[in-house]
Amino acid sequence: MKIIAYSDGGRIALGIVTSPAHFVAVSDIAPDLPSSLISILEQEDGLTRLRLAAEGRQGDRALADVTLKPFLDRPNAMWALALNFKSHIAETGLQTSMEFPHLFMRTAASYVGAGEPILAPAESVARAFDYEGELGVVIGTPGRYIPVERALDHVAGYTCLNEGSVREFQMHNRQFGLGKNFEASGSYGPWLMTRDEFGDPATHTIKTRINGVVRQSAPLDDMLLGVAQVISYLSQGYRLRPGDLIAMGTPGALKPQPDDVEGHDLSRQYGPFPTPGLVHMRPGDWVEVEIDGLGVLGNPVAADAAISESGDAAQKSAA
Amino acid sequence: MKIIAYSDGGRIALGIVTSPAHFVAVSDIAPDLPSSLISILEQEDGLTRLRLAAEGRQGDRALADVTLKPFLDRPNAMWALALNFKSHIAETGLQTSMEFPHLFMRTAASYVGAGEPILAPAESVARAFDYEGELGVVIGTPGRYIPVERALDHVAGYTCLNEGSVREFQMHNRQFGLGKNFEASGSYGPWLMTRDEFGDPATHTIKTRINGVVRQSAPLDDMLLGVAQVISYLSQGYRLRPGDLIAMGTPGALKPQPDDVEGHDLSRQYGPFPTPGLVHMRPGDWVEVEIDGLGVLGNPVAADAAISESGDAAQKSAA
Repeated sequence: MKIIAYSDGGRIALGIVTSPAHFVAVSDIAPDLPSSLISILEQEDGLTRLRLAAEGRQGDRALADVTLKPFLDRPNAMWALALNFKSHIAETGLQTSMEFPHLFMRTAASYVGAGEPILAPAESVARAFDYEGELGVVIGTPGRYIPVERALDHVAGYTCLNEGSVREFQMHNRQFGLGKNFEASGSYGPWLMTRDEFGDPATHTIKTRINGVVRQSAPLDDMLLGVAQVISYLSQGYRLRPGDLIAMGTPGALKPQPDDVEGHDLSRQYGPFPTPGLVHMRPGDWVEVEIDGLGVLGNPVAADAAISESGDAAQKSAA
Repeated sequence: MKIIAYSDGGRIALGIVTSPAHFVAVSDIAPDLPSSLISILEQEDGLTRLRLAAEGRQGDRALADVTLKPFLDRPNAMWALALNFKSHIAETGLQTSMEFPHLFMRTAASYVGAGEPILAPAESVARAFDYEGELGVVIGTPGRYIPVERALDHVAGYTCLNEGSVREFQMHNRQFGLGKNFEASGSYGPWLMTRDEFGDPATHTIKTRINGVVRQSAPLDDMLLGVAQVISYLSQGYRLRPGDLIAMGTPGALKPQPDDVEGHDLSRQYGPFPTPGLVHMRPGDWVEVEIDGLGVLGNPVAADAAISESGDAAQKSAA
């Protein structure tokens, strides 16, 4: 089952995708279910009721007609992993534990939905704004002290995720802080694919494309620590909650093709680790994260407001 | 004005403190205001309406009769600063930027209210569980690109905060991750004191006591980066939102008195930086963070469930 959230006249509604182009509204097929995915996940039989309600339905709405939105409305925790692919560890030259996940957090405001603009910082603020194609894991069943062998039972489903990162700010100090939390700097979607349909994450691959050029490509079993290990680790101290998101880390840059002028041009890189095949995200780009068997998360990149254009800043000046 | 949240028959209600022992319920004096503090802060005149409604009221309810709760219900961001007091930087021997704040995040679930038990990890999980007395800053007015000289205008108020930290997990990898986010490991309260009543943070001092012994004591102007600088920094990339919390960092341990046996006994310390005057929090302790002119945040320390006692874990085993 593929669950979307979309903008429906100012409010966020849920839908179930029924074909490559169509979906049904959850409020049409299951009006008694909550309109928030987290609230559905909090009901022990929520996903089951949704699945029964959607069974055999023909989609009567077109995906092309709606704006997709992030399907998690402010969960308690949005975890993310740094340095969880050997290829990314190698290209940065950074150290990480081989035993414990390298965990930090993002806020809900740092993510937009599929198709929505990702905001590149104003050039006066930062220029090393990087995509990070990742597997996103959404928790369904809460739990503490979850053994590795039962950890995947706690997963509601998976999504594609672009963990957009502002490298200059990430390097301001030892904790990543603001560098991983710029406004609308990342995205996830296009939908939540439930665990039963996605199967074992380790059998899938992930690709990131900028303007059609593949910049990252890796099997998900290249991860240093897998989904089950990370869930089990977190549950030692934290009660995983329905709707919690875990971004599983990004692979390294793919070696550029010989004729890929941009991919070889390190002079246009402003980050701490200039790497062949890496290009920053810039306004006007189109960025895609694809996980085979799951779907494609595509976003345009737009320019964030600079200080003089910011409504908030202007409002403050006037106050 | 001092705003509390308290448990009122299963739901969370708001109150205004009118004397050392009494308060009025917001639902009694301003039934048209929302029951969530964040929703009140989101209204441009929310605090003003609350202040007008509370003016001249006599408290008809006793603080002693209610359980205080965290007054922020899942804000978009709960920022926290590492290494922001010179005395704490010195005792750890760690490096930090002198220019940029050392920022990470916590979840709402990591905090309880005043008087509620803070949970010490089961001994089989971790033993270096430390208090961190801090000033908590709550954002009232949203904003991007906020200049330092207007930053304090965006503050709704201040609170005492205990940023309980599990050192072993904090040192598992370079990002603090789970070590700063154990379930119910910290607290804030007892109330939000509005900015007009608290005044300039730099003129106050902070003290942390364990079982009555002062373990931290510092003027808040010992901070490396002050409240206004941190708000201005964050607003370069992030739109500050009503209800966002910023924990401003903790001072170093106070030198123990000559007769303070526990304070001198480094053999009972399990953290990476054994320090005279530091004692870990243990079940049965009473921990207090006091900011002069604001109030005292007191919490008992209780033992977190171990694996065999955990309802969740048991439930999973049976599933």
